[in-house]
Amino acid sequence: MAQHIAFHLAGSAVATPRRRVPSAEVDALIGQSAGWVEDRFGIASRFWAEPDETSSMLGAQAAQAALIDAGWDAGSLDVIVGACGVMEQPIPGTAVLIQRRLGLSDSGIPAFDVNATCLSFLLAFDVVLSGFALGKWRRALIVGADIASAALDFSDPEASAIFGDGAAAVALEAGGPHQLLTLRLATYGEGADHCRLEAGGTRLRPHDDLAGFLARSKFQMDGVGVFKATARRFPAFMSGLLDAANVDETALNSIIPHQASATALEHLKRSIAGAHGKTVDIFRSHGNQIAVSLPHALHTARITGLLAPGSTSLLVGSSAGISLGGAVVCW
Amino acid sequence: MAQHIAFHLAGSAVATPRRRVPSAEVDALIGQSAGWVEDRFGIASRFWAEPDETSSMLGAQAAQAALIDAGWDAGSLDVIVGACGVMEQPIPGTAVLIQRRLGLSDSGIPAFDVNATCLSFLLAFDVVLSGFALGKWRRALIVGADIASAALDFSDPEASAIFGDGAAAVALEAGGPHQLLTLRLATYGEGADHCRLEAGGTRLRPHDDLAGFLARSKFQMDGVGVFKATARRFPAFMSGLLDAANVDETALNSIIPHQASATALEHLKRSIAGAHGKTVDIFRSHGNQIAVSLPHALHTARITGLLAPGSTSLLVGSSAGISLGGAVVCW
Repeated sequence: MAQHIAFHLAGSAVATPRRRVPSAEVDALIGQSAGWVEDRFGIASRFWAEPDETSSMLGAQAAQAALIDAGWDAGSLDVIVGACGVMEQPIPGTAVLIQRRLGLSDSGIPAFDVNATCLSFLLAFDVVLSGFALGKWRRALIVGADIASAALDFSDPEASAIFGDGAAAVALEAGGPHQLLTLRLATYGEGADHCRLEAGGTRLRPHDDLAGFLARSKFQMDGVGVFKATARRFPAFMSGLLDAANVDETALNSIIPHQASATALEHLKRSIAGAHGKTVDIFRSHGNQIAVSLPHALHTARITGLLAPGSTSLLVGSSAGISLGGAVVCW
Repeated sequence: MAQHIAFHLAGSAVATPRRRVPSAEVDALIGQSAGWVEDRFGIASRFWAEPDETSSMLGAQAAQAALIDAGWDAGSLDVIVGACGVMEQPIPGTAVLIQRRLGLSDSGIPAFDVNATCLSFLLAFDVVLSGFALGKWRRALIVGADIASAALDFSDPEASAIFGDGAAAVALEAGGPHQLLTLRLATYGEGADHCRLEAGGTRLRPHDDLAGFLARSKFQMDGVGVFKATARRFPAFMSGLLDAANVDETALNSIIPHQASATALEHLKRSIAGAHGKTVDIFRSHGNQIAVSLPHALHTARITGLLAPGSTSLLVGSSAGISLGGAVVCW
């Protein structure tokens, strides 16, 4: 981004499904001895939604709480941006369903979705702040919600045991005191097959080939492939991002990453000087929540006092695609 | 939008599936006598994709042709925005798959999707032009592709006979000579149930309830409901849009609408003074192509000479949600 953009992170909140699932339950599910999942993947528990807990329901819960946190009436919003990894349903989008749940059905407040899988929040943040910079909107709500547990293949522990469900929302206002110094997204489609959920769009047709549809209706991940593809691109991406922000990595006060996996978080901490003590890590208690991990980590940073006035944060992550994304914010 | 944004519509193209489907074929499919579909819905033919013709394949065809039309190397793009109604698959998004098909796999060019169902193109146009105004990007490609035929319920002629498949792409450059005067989107979630495709996201789980999943895996539309909900909001939306652009409706040189249905197009033409002679209408030959109708109509306007220098166009439409959207452009 060519210029700094002033905004105010006025409110934030998260919502989790009722059911917390300890890793011992997942051990049983995948036929491993007690303690295997936690030892292997560094995750102690995650939340999984019951069928009645939908993306828009969890998203609206988080949205409502973020509005209360900001002290705003829902009707004062100028835009609602849905930032999910996978939508609740194809038509209409999740943001519309959340608008309705917020009692804004007849408001006319624009509600739409953006998608960059696990980086959808960063994309929404870019869209909203661009709108602020151009005077289009004063108040915006970004809502992410993902229910990974709807499509997990437990015959592949690496692609199932680490995922959790949840929602997060942030209330943003134009005008400061916070500053976006830079925001970047880079996509390398060569990695498009490393993380895949194929069924649920226009290509696979359940009425023509049900068996083929069902066989591809669970999330598939080549963990080593995606890690390698991401790690290879990461150093150049990071140095470009920090150069654009004119910030040295040692000057970062907090690092707010997507929670891809314990391995990815450890790699990130080792890649940035001094990162171990200042990186938000909620993986052990929530796992990888797809597009919700990043705003959930931002909310955690905020309520634990990491976003001190004048301090600088790096928001960073990777997503299916593969894409790398990052932003540098001064609070 | 608070300010005019300069851009150049440098190239455009469409792609259609190989198979053109005359309405006589649809008459047979839905058990009506020959001529019934054309008489009733005002559609003579549409294109339907075969299983090998995917959204990203058609999208890449249109994208390639738009790049040739613009005289650009694909590698000169700064961003690729996917603007589909329904994605090819949930993970990763359609824009990533198109990036790979364009040979840009290792380019790092950001590729992401935006979604407002039938108004996704208008949303992408807003995102791209905002990026131009802020100096983020110089060259952008917007690609829409939809394969409605993958999820049609032929027991409901109104919700099936009028839909066609296709793709469209536009190549946009920052800096003029074209000007976006205003762009607006308004969402009324009260209409969220009028147009629905429920299966294919996080809510309905085929492995838990296959029958329920399949029962909701086709597009459902309450045509009267969506028409009424849209028509009720349209006059205020239009006058707000034209006021924001400071353009009188009689000064519009061309009207480029989403091709929702013959009835909706007729209603639009009657709603705007003098619209009958200057509205792009490709419904009879292509039907409703979801998010592709609007950029396809824009391409048609462009190649038929409707976008004369200094002339003013209205882009306008409605989508599931319901949302209303419009833009006023001076060429």
